[in-house]
Amino acid sequence: MTTSDPGLKTSPLAPSGGFPDLPVVLGVSFSAVAAGVKYTGRTDVMLASVAPGSAVAGVFTKSTTRAAPVLDCQDKLAALHAKGASKHGFAILVNSGNANAFTGAVGATSVEAISNAVAGALKIPVSHVFTGSTGVIGEPLPHGKITDAIAELKSRLAAGGVADAAQAIMTTDTFAKGAGTSFNIDENIVNIAGIAKGSGMIAPDMATMLVFIFTDAAVDQAVLQSMVTRLNRKTFNCITVDSDTSTSDSLIVVATAQSGAKITNANSKSGRIFARELEKVMLNLAHQVVRDGEGASKFLEIEVTGAKSKADAHKIGKAIANSPLVKTAVAGEDPNWGRVVMAIGKSGARADRDKVSIWFGDILVAARGWVSPDYREDDGAAYMKNQDLKIKVDLAIGDGTAKIWTCDLTKDYVAINADYRS
Amino acid sequence: MTTSDPGLKTSPLAPSGGFPDLPVVLGVSFSAVAAGVKYTGRTDVMLASVAPGSAVAGVFTKSTTRAAPVLDCQDKLAALHAKGASKHGFAILVNSGNANAFTGAVGATSVEAISNAVAGALKIPVSHVFTGSTGVIGEPLPHGKITDAIAELKSRLAAGGVADAAQAIMTTDTFAKGAGTSFNIDENIVNIAGIAKGSGMIAPDMATMLVFIFTDAAVDQAVLQSMVTRLNRKTFNCITVDSDTSTSDSLIVVATAQSGAKITNANSKSGRIFARELEKVMLNLAHQVVRDGEGASKFLEIEVTGAKSKADAHKIGKAIANSPLVKTAVAGEDPNWGRVVMAIGKSGARADRDKVSIWFGDILVAARGWVSPDYREDDGAAYMKNQDLKIKVDLAIGDGTAKIWTCDLTKDYVAINADYRS
Repeated sequence: MTTSDPGLKTSPLAPSGGFPDLPVVLGVSFSAVAAGVKYTGRTDVMLASVAPGSAVAGVFTKSTTRAAPVLDCQDKLAALHAKGASKHGFAILVNSGNANAFTGAVGATSVEAISNAVAGALKIPVSHVFTGSTGVIGEPLPHGKITDAIAELKSRLAAGGVADAAQAIMTTDTFAKGAGTSFNIDENIVNIAGIAKGSGMIAPDMATMLVFIFTDAAVDQAVLQSMVTRLNRKTFNCITVDSDTSTSDSLIVVATAQSGAKITNANSKSGRIFARELEKVMLNLAHQVVRDGEGASKFLEIEVTGAKSKADAHKIGKAIANSPLVKTAVAGEDPNWGRVVMAIGKSGARADRDKVSIWFGDILVAARGWVSPDYREDDGAAYMKNQDLKIKVDLAIGDGTAKIWTCDLTKDYVAINADYRS
Repeated sequence: MTTSDPGLKTSPLAPSGGFPDLPVVLGVSFSAVAAGVKYTGRTDVMLASVAPGSAVAGVFTKSTTRAAPVLDCQDKLAALHAKGASKHGFAILVNSGNANAFTGAVGATSVEAISNAVAGALKIPVSHVFTGSTGVIGEPLPHGKITDAIAELKSRLAAGGVADAAQAIMTTDTFAKGAGTSFNIDENIVNIAGIAKGSGMIAPDMATMLVFIFTDAAVDQAVLQSMVTRLNRKTFNCITVDSDTSTSDSLIVVATAQSGAKITNANSKSGRIFARELEKVMLNLAHQVVRDGEGASKFLEIEVTGAKSKADAHKIGKAIANSPLVKTAVAGEDPNWGRVVMAIGKSGARADRDKVSIWFGDILVAARGWVSPDYREDDGAAYMKNQDLKIKVDLAIGDGTAKIWTCDLTKDYVAINADYRS
């Protein structure tokens, strides 16, 4: 696996077996080249070409300082959704090494130059070209290096090129991230394949999470967008590495309609099957991002039940997941439930101290406002030695639930973000 | 200086010259004893006895899982303010080593036992005894050790005992914290002396910030409370070490009325003089808490101007101060202004990317949405080598301002919170 920094070891939480064998999604081809945007000796630009008749949906960062390509994608997607189905093909071009963020008017110029070059090469409207950039912030993107590489990118397009694409978008990731699934809707085989990069935030770059998912199902554009927005709330919006939101986070889902399976209603039987499979792929990629969290040594699931509302459950889960004291306790294999109590208390969500119960794995640690009489510190300490951990909190005041995923905070996180200079 | 953990070195940011020479506040006496609540070989309980005719004001944590003594103080203070002036004396008793937090009904029993014992010894109503506890969470407070020590605490009460009191309330603090001032109102000398503990959160204890400030001015109870609430927003509510809110944070201000200076209106000349001096003491103590932040090597002031509102300015300042990426960059002496842009973007406050300017000290780093043409990375890197740093952000969309103070995030922070077990 190529990483931007050869000094980085692959995360101990990386999935075993390397990059997965993803299904070929009909109607999409991929390529990658080494354009030398910033890194040397590795690929850094990927192109995905998408057949005419596809639907595209997207979710983007809410940052008020978001990057130029994000603003451009949002504008193009809004225009596309306003117009309905398109007869043209689409393209997605992504570079690593430079985020084209906080680059003033020059940022938009770079996006335009790249979009125009891709549109010309693939003979599609410029409004159908989506771009993404990830890497250093505040430096002008040398877009000439990218436009110069577009002929080569076009010539290399291949249906089986998804692994190359996943590698080209890595920045400080320690492994390439992919997930896919194949299943039947009626008599049609439907394929979904997705790639992601993210969770590295090595100095002085911004971490960005970029996710691209492709399927050959035929999904109505509006149905796809509302499904992706809904599933995003349960997957990517439920992960956190260090509470810092990137200027470039983007999730784009493309449905090429080439498999014959048609989904026109999210609540139909096919709609529900498709949503379930799409959610699996999204959740898998989201977990891989956490598993590549900077300096991470533990993967942590936080389940909140019995909150006053779903929003309160999410707030409590995020407060626990983002607490430096909880995260360092997990790193130190310390069953420090007092810090979980603290995080619940500071979350801003409603809670009744004397009704709160807390489990570490299956071990009841605190029950109704105090340490459980049966709890033994040795049991908690033994549990915390696992690599994958679960903390469950029950508020007992409502039926709001949430699951949040995060990793621990280690000295390596500080080393990666304080000691390295690019 | 006694600390709970002899392995902890005094913070490099500690004020030089040791504990300050605080003025004697007329009408208050202090004592401290080693009761063996948890620590051995050091004092761990302090008592302050306050003369009749005093006014008391307080501000407490908003945590929904707050500790038993906090709930008790809030109840007593509300009752006191409802009744108006009291003819009786007051007492404040604080122990370190055990926070009496998340201890169910037993927690309230401990508070009651201590309050009764102090009231009996000092012959004051039990409703006039305020208690505070700081230390480990979730363990029952062995209050018998404290009630057994009250006769000795009473016998040792002395007007000059404030330094002993400051030492007794330390947990993982690396230095005792005090600040004071003397000034004239009309022809009367007014003294203010305050002590604080806080910013340590060593495993598995909760950090708590406890602050007690005494003055011999005569301040109307309602005027004192509204003044303290207002000044708290500009001082203690503007500091953050790691974004984790304690279950026990408490600030109590006592005015004994013994100096003859009378303040019945916050907007009078005397009211403004007194508020200005009180704010100085509060800010001094708040800064000392940050300077003792776990693992801290840099003290950082963040000034936000031009925000749409005061609340937005505060939100942006806090987002920058709490960002692990900003804090690790400061630790690494990295002038990483891209991370400041990121934090502004994620704060949830209004911002126009293309109007944002950022200074490190006096160095203009970014102007109106992009790196300043005159900025040289070498200048930024040289500035970051200072121990006391200032980051200024101008949003240029309104007149909201805020100042926030924090420290950096170092490997020592992780070591203190992950590796130590008490």
